[in-house]
Amino acid sequence: MIFSARTDVAYTMSFTPPLATLRRDGNSIVIIDQTGLPWRVVERRLGTLDDVLEAIVALRVRGAPLIGVAAAHGLALALERDASDAALEDAIARLLSTRPTAVNLRLALEAQRAVLAPLPPSERPAAAWREAERQRADDAQRCEAIGRAGLPWIEELACRLDRPVRVLTHCNAGWAATCGAGTALSPLYLAHAAGIALEVFVSETRPRNQGLITHWELTQAGVPATLIADNAAGLLIAQGDIDLVLVGADRIARNGDVANKIGTYLKALAAHAHGVPFLVAAPATTFDPTCPNGAAIPIEERAADEVLTVAGLPPGTDEPVPVRLTPLPARVRNPAFDLTPARWITAILTETGAWPAPLAAAKLFPEPDR
Amino acid sequence: MIFSARTDVAYTMSFTPPLATLRRDGNSIVIIDQTGLPWRVVERRLGTLDDVLEAIVALRVRGAPLIGVAAAHGLALALERDASDAALEDAIARLLSTRPTAVNLRLALEAQRAVLAPLPPSERPAAAWREAERQRADDAQRCEAIGRAGLPWIEELACRLDRPVRVLTHCNAGWAATCGAGTALSPLYLAHAAGIALEVFVSETRPRNQGLITHWELTQAGVPATLIADNAAGLLIAQGDIDLVLVGADRIARNGDVANKIGTYLKALAAHAHGVPFLVAAPATTFDPTCPNGAAIPIEERAADEVLTVAGLPPGTDEPVPVRLTPLPARVRNPAFDLTPARWITAILTETGAWPAPLAAAKLFPEPDR
Repeated sequence: MIFSARTDVAYTMSFTPPLATLRRDGNSIVIIDQTGLPWRVVERRLGTLDDVLEAIVALRVRGAPLIGVAAAHGLALALERDASDAALEDAIARLLSTRPTAVNLRLALEAQRAVLAPLPPSERPAAAWREAERQRADDAQRCEAIGRAGLPWIEELACRLDRPVRVLTHCNAGWAATCGAGTALSPLYLAHAAGIALEVFVSETRPRNQGLITHWELTQAGVPATLIADNAAGLLIAQGDIDLVLVGADRIARNGDVANKIGTYLKALAAHAHGVPFLVAAPATTFDPTCPNGAAIPIEERAADEVLTVAGLPPGTDEPVPVRLTPLPARVRNPAFDLTPARWITAILTETGAWPAPLAAAKLFPEPDR
Repeated sequence: MIFSARTDVAYTMSFTPPLATLRRDGNSIVIIDQTGLPWRVVERRLGTLDDVLEAIVALRVRGAPLIGVAAAHGLALALERDASDAALEDAIARLLSTRPTAVNLRLALEAQRAVLAPLPPSERPAAAWREAERQRADDAQRCEAIGRAGLPWIEELACRLDRPVRVLTHCNAGWAATCGAGTALSPLYLAHAAGIALEVFVSETRPRNQGLITHWELTQAGVPATLIADNAAGLLIAQGDIDLVLVGADRIARNGDVANKIGTYLKALAAHAHGVPFLVAAPATTFDPTCPNGAAIPIEERAADEVLTVAGLPPGTDEPVPVRLTPLPARVRNPAFDLTPARWITAILTETGAWPAPLAAAKLFPEPDR
């Protein structure tokens, strides 16, 4: 652990998101409908279990931590109507079915069941709300702990540089996906709350443009953010415009290899070539103890439409003489993630601290049975 | 020069573009209006000098070589109406003013003037058409010479691999920008014409998406082409999916450093990290003898709108309750080019052959006076 050399600042270590991603309002919950971000910020009131199921399936609630907390709240809504054993199990089953592979969702509902099952039905609704709120607060704390693990890196740069610390990030892992300061971006929000001047470069993150949400999040929180095309990262790093690269992770193997949004690896190569620290920040649930190294992580290939649809509309031509109407290109490769080898990762930040990439997995998991 | 080890193929060394980018039809010329590509392929008849001026200014004619040839034809159109000395100079001045810094445009018009000025006005129109046609044919030959310089690299891979040769390219420098096989992509078209099986991976090339035109060009010419997001290049190269990277150049310094479309450098880093050859193909006019190295090449910063506008439209939300209408992000960095150091370039291909990057400049230019 690196301790800050900067003792002249009274740190405000907590960060409050500019908008609540999920809040209880009486016997309903109010979320930001994330399908409109970043162009349209609309709140949506969810009054029933069905509303919550629809919101998860339609990606109105987005981000693994937030989905878990939303499901915990959805269960409370369901129990307000019927808190019998059968209704409890039915609601859990329906919530699980929205995202059968989501770890956080399963953990959230198992925690609810452990609390609720022993109770008489009459006590379950209030207990479910309490547990949901506990999970919400717990998520915020976890986000903050990740932020604290990364803060010293930013402090050290701030002490050394006579200008804002310039951080490059990719994709989206900020406050909108959590109930707190986000995962990967949490160190930035804590640094900003602590009064450290930042300039964050956000790459667009084609093909799904999640960088636009990151840019919006940062701007909403008052952090100066500059949007760039993914292609621009190499030049900026080579020119010395970037002091630190900070990204999230989708899965981390036992040896510290990281799978993250496609395009991460190119940034790691550029950071390595120019001696810029490359940090990965993610909750401990991202470590997969069953995965020995990056080569064992399957890379999801997503729909060609993602690459094709955002490419823009045909520009108008006046009085055209059509020769041929060209079909959109049919052959597309669209891998969702790429792999960054542990040796090019300066450190991995989790809620337990900052670790060199290979050590991080060893610290968090015992050797699995083989 | 590497000679092909493959003697079992009777090479068809020439390539005919699937559509003529510019052709004479009586006393007018017909171009493909490139503003609609790749979605809409429309021909446009240009019957007057004004038509040609408008087509160049409106980017209906695109690509340095094609613009020069179009201007040479535009002069012929002007002289059909008035071939006096005054009209000749006026037409040249107006054509030059469309793109004051375009080298090919200036060279094309200077060549026309050298031919036409000594002639009596009555002979000028026919001579102007002949010179325009000579320039068109000359451009096609130059493209083919660049292709020949790159062909051995592809042949060598084809001999070694028991599958199509997989080439990654970036941006657009294919036949649509020339009167022949293109500049950077010419080796691919010649290889395809020679019967070598290819699979070309084309990166989208954000923010302006020129990769879509490249993908269209390749597909029209019957070359299997796969579109990818720019972010995907690192994973594909790391996975061994790419045998060769082939890109163009906007400017080449004396030491062999290359300025090319933003995103090129990230591909060079990945190619270097995984031992994949990285070739730059460009006409000799791309070498700038006044530029000692890449650091001396100014990097144009283009409009923020390029990054912002193609990001898509706000998705529909049903019955939204607007909380806040978010303005589009105001802070954008949009450098148009990046720099790839000569040491990471396997070879530079020009119409005079294939050269190691530092040698290429030395071979093409004498030491400038300083």
